[in-house]
Amino acid sequence: MGRLTTRRRVSRRTGDTSAERVETLVVEEPLEIRVNGAPLTVTMRTPGSDVELAQGFLLTEAVVTQRADIATVAYCRGADADGANSYNVLDVSLRPGLPVPDSAMRNFTATSSCGVCGKAALDAVYLATRHSPGDDPATVAATTLATMPERLRAAQKVFAVTGGLHGAALFGLDGALLAVREDIGRHNAVDKVIGWALENDHIPLTGTVLLVSGRASFELTQKAVMAGIPILAAVSAPSSLAVDLAAQSGLTLVAFLRGDSMNVYSRADRIT
Amino acid sequence: MGRLTTRRRVSRRTGDTSAERVETLVVEEPLEIRVNGAPLTVTMRTPGSDVELAQGFLLTEAVVTQRADIATVAYCRGADADGANSYNVLDVSLRPGLPVPDSAMRNFTATSSCGVCGKAALDAVYLATRHSPGDDPATVAATTLATMPERLRAAQKVFAVTGGLHGAALFGLDGALLAVREDIGRHNAVDKVIGWALENDHIPLTGTVLLVSGRASFELTQKAVMAGIPILAAVSAPSSLAVDLAAQSGLTLVAFLRGDSMNVYSRADRIT
Repeated sequence: MGRLTTRRRVSRRTGDTSAERVETLVVEEPLEIRVNGAPLTVTMRTPGSDVELAQGFLLTEAVVTQRADIATVAYCRGADADGANSYNVLDVSLRPGLPVPDSAMRNFTATSSCGVCGKAALDAVYLATRHSPGDDPATVAATTLATMPERLRAAQKVFAVTGGLHGAALFGLDGALLAVREDIGRHNAVDKVIGWALENDHIPLTGTVLLVSGRASFELTQKAVMAGIPILAAVSAPSSLAVDLAAQSGLTLVAFLRGDSMNVYSRADRIT
Repeated sequence: MGRLTTRRRVSRRTGDTSAERVETLVVEEPLEIRVNGAPLTVTMRTPGSDVELAQGFLLTEAVVTQRADIATVAYCRGADADGANSYNVLDVSLRPGLPVPDSAMRNFTATSSCGVCGKAALDAVYLATRHSPGDDPATVAATTLATMPERLRAAQKVFAVTGGLHGAALFGLDGALLAVREDIGRHNAVDKVIGWALENDHIPLTGTVLLVSGRASFELTQKAVMAGIPILAAVSAPSSLAVDLAAQSGLTLVAFLRGDSMNVYSRADRIT
């Protein structure tokens, strides 16, 4: 259902002049992810790669750990009030015996003390992940890293030029481009590439670089750790908690990757 | 607790040279919002204006509609496992008699059919809001709008130059700057300025312009509608669903506001 872009009428003003025209916009639609029939979450996403998105989301939320944990993924059969299937409800059936997550348990809200803090968030990731990015012997040449943002931009141009899409790409350590996905939500773009990896039995993603077109937040860093990725690179700034999580997890965090310059916040020994 | 920025060691690489230095980063910490003692949500935010953030969130999620609906807001009293208060848990007590929201009901996840779609999302906002931005007789001069992004940037420079903060600002129709807030999350920055307005009894925000430093998503447009704001302006691109919601709500949506040029997607009659 790759409805990545759509067209809308717009009034374009420049100084005193105004002109009507039709413009291409990025599509945003809700996707409801159900697990064994029960609603788990709704994310606002750009349609396309929905199955990957759901799989990546479930992996990075620690609901599944491998492809075999997912029995089936299917769009809701049936129709909405207008008699059409919106293709916006995806039902994931888990392998029998796997615990079904409680939607109320997401985002570690179930604290009873005053203890929710950055450290608790880091510990929650540590408890949830099965992977040790810190043990990954991966290294990557700085000159190889430097080529990645332009290659992501080139790949994004193929899909859409709306100015409204975040991109995420997986690269091999030699710079080979493994997967690129786009979405209006930064986290969704990352879930889509990780979902692609799950579908192709590449979890944990040892020996890879995850590049994101924007900033490195805690959430994106968490997703990298959950997928076993050793190197996360961002074109823009990192947050304090992203840096702290990377340091604790042994993830190499690169940010402000622009031209031949970059900041390395943790495990700089991996950059050669 | 305005811990907007912090410092971390970083290895800065440019070509073949590498140097260690200390850099300023934007702080990201979880904030748990409780209502009458029960956890409602956790958002990753930049500390500062937490009470405004919680109030704005509750308004735009239709939990409260006016200042009088909130009895008290207080950080969790007590300490975490390390004996310190993290100042990351905020408990909001509602006016007696006001229904307490169910965290599982957020994001219209409680659908039973295949009907979750953009139209359903628009209808949910229509049902939830008490305001009619479409009836607001507000107009604003294009020349006044054109000055706003630079003034937001100037105000942001005062707070932080980390490259990692989104900004949101409220302006009067004459261009008077009413409030500016920043956050690592775009939605949080908007919740903070709306929470400021709630605290100062300015809801509905008739006769105002909300400017956001990034893109205009469905979620941000929804927040503007929920607060009764007639004009939303974004520096970057809008999504399809943001444009659709603006059109349905009678909100003026301006995007790509740069220099003296801008795109107007709905209710262009308000731009003079």
